[in-house]
Amino acid sequence: MRILTRAERAQLAMVLEVSAYPKPGNVDRCHDYPDTQLEHFLASAIMARPAFESAEKGEGGVGKLIHQAVELTSGHTGGNTHFGAFILLIPLVMGDGIPGALRAARTTTVEDALEFYKAFGKTQVRVIPSHELDVHDPASLETIGKRGMTLYDLMLYSAPRDMVAREWVSGFQMTRRGADLLHAAGCGRQAIVTAFLSLLALEPDTFIVKKHGPEVAARTMEKAREVLEGIRDLQAFDQECIDKGINPGSIADIIIASIYIALGEGWKWDCSGTA
Amino acid sequence: MRILTRAERAQLAMVLEVSAYPKPGNVDRCHDYPDTQLEHFLASAIMARPAFESAEKGEGGVGKLIHQAVELTSGHTGGNTHFGAFILLIPLVMGDGIPGALRAARTTTVEDALEFYKAFGKTQVRVIPSHELDVHDPASLETIGKRGMTLYDLMLYSAPRDMVAREWVSGFQMTRRGADLLHAAGCGRQAIVTAFLSLLALEPDTFIVKKHGPEVAARTMEKAREVLEGIRDLQAFDQECIDKGINPGSIADIIIASIYIALGEGWKWDCSGTA
Repeated sequence: MRILTRAERAQLAMVLEVSAYPKPGNVDRCHDYPDTQLEHFLASAIMARPAFESAEKGEGGVGKLIHQAVELTSGHTGGNTHFGAFILLIPLVMGDGIPGALRAARTTTVEDALEFYKAFGKTQVRVIPSHELDVHDPASLETIGKRGMTLYDLMLYSAPRDMVAREWVSGFQMTRRGADLLHAAGCGRQAIVTAFLSLLALEPDTFIVKKHGPEVAARTMEKAREVLEGIRDLQAFDQECIDKGINPGSIADIIIASIYIALGEGWKWDCSGTA
Repeated sequence: MRILTRAERAQLAMVLEVSAYPKPGNVDRCHDYPDTQLEHFLASAIMARPAFESAEKGEGGVGKLIHQAVELTSGHTGGNTHFGAFILLIPLVMGDGIPGALRAARTTTVEDALEFYKAFGKTQVRVIPSHELDVHDPASLETIGKRGMTLYDLMLYSAPRDMVAREWVSGFQMTRRGADLLHAAGCGRQAIVTAFLSLLALEPDTFIVKKHGPEVAARTMEKAREVLEGIRDLQAFDQECIDKGINPGSIADIIIASIYIALGEGWKWDCSGTA
């Protein structure tokens, strides 16, 4: 059995996450959304590889590589599939784990921030205009430059409203928690579902907050906990989320990072053998 | 929209094929076999990339690159996932299409044959001992060397019993047919299912012949034709194949090659957009 490169591990994490099911509300092996389907996520995982390879070699800054990953994955039209995952995976691959990722995050520059904003502008990521530097407004780029904001500063600025950004400033706490949950839950796709539900029950998904407001996010958390307690049916919960378009996209991004970390620590994605 | 590299196109063909459903008897988005699951195929597609990249750059012979692809994909334990696909894709990527693949195939050497046999020995591919050079017998390698057999000669030798090998000597006829069927069937996963069924109705799958004998293969062909004619239910046919372990693995390999060719000719894998 050969050892995977970090880039391959990142890609594998992306395809394992999207394949696992049922993951309430998200695209998974058994569910699509009309505009974003399983195949878009699989294609995105394949197309992103050169950015991960550069990150593994330490070539290019974090902002530039996130931008590169977004550009590489523009080869499909399923909208934003892995933007949040790239924000987590690029520093994790670059730093070969959480401590190194934090060093990479904390030493980002204004240049990284500008590259990131260019990437952001090319995705269809949901923003709350009143709370964010508007990525579609060229003035935002000027503001970043004037204030001397680094990419780390941008994440700090977004952390209260975005749990992916929060990972950068919290020391990848939920990513770490997800990896521990995977180890505890055993091998394979069932462990991914368990870890996903556990994170969903732990904190409100900020993607849901942006799309549906804090009440819906809180209620989704509660329902995830009820599933874990065995008093709510997982399939029915999944269907309800899908019907209402409630997709915990940020938790999915974090679980991808968790799988990446866990794989590096020997977690078995394949229950049938030693992989 | 950026243009995909040939290596990416090969990988994309592999994940699109395995995701499409229902494909009678094979692993697909909705079905696994106990030892070989969707995730094994996805992991295999990710892990094979360096072999395709070398093929695209023209680095390394056909036999060596097939051997490399097999070794790269030994990072999972799902058994043989894509060996037949590699036999088709490596020359197709190397030659940038069917005419170039045929030139590559016809100019293979004894060295290619030896590399191929080493690769073969590392897979769990089904062989009929009485009809084949035994890949687990070191004497076979000696025989190849003594007889001066090239990899093309080996394919010629296997062609009557193996439809993948037959592609090399027939000018990739079924691969071409599959690509034409994809173009005719329109975009996306439904076209893959239609093309798959059409090839299955056209010729007996030699993988089924090796595993279950010619009668079962012939009957499977007939049933595929009945599905296309609308007089047999596809889902029921799929379930029947799965229950009996009848998996048309060689047709699946050829469809992957067909998708690779069709993608290069502008076939749209994504009905929602322009991908």
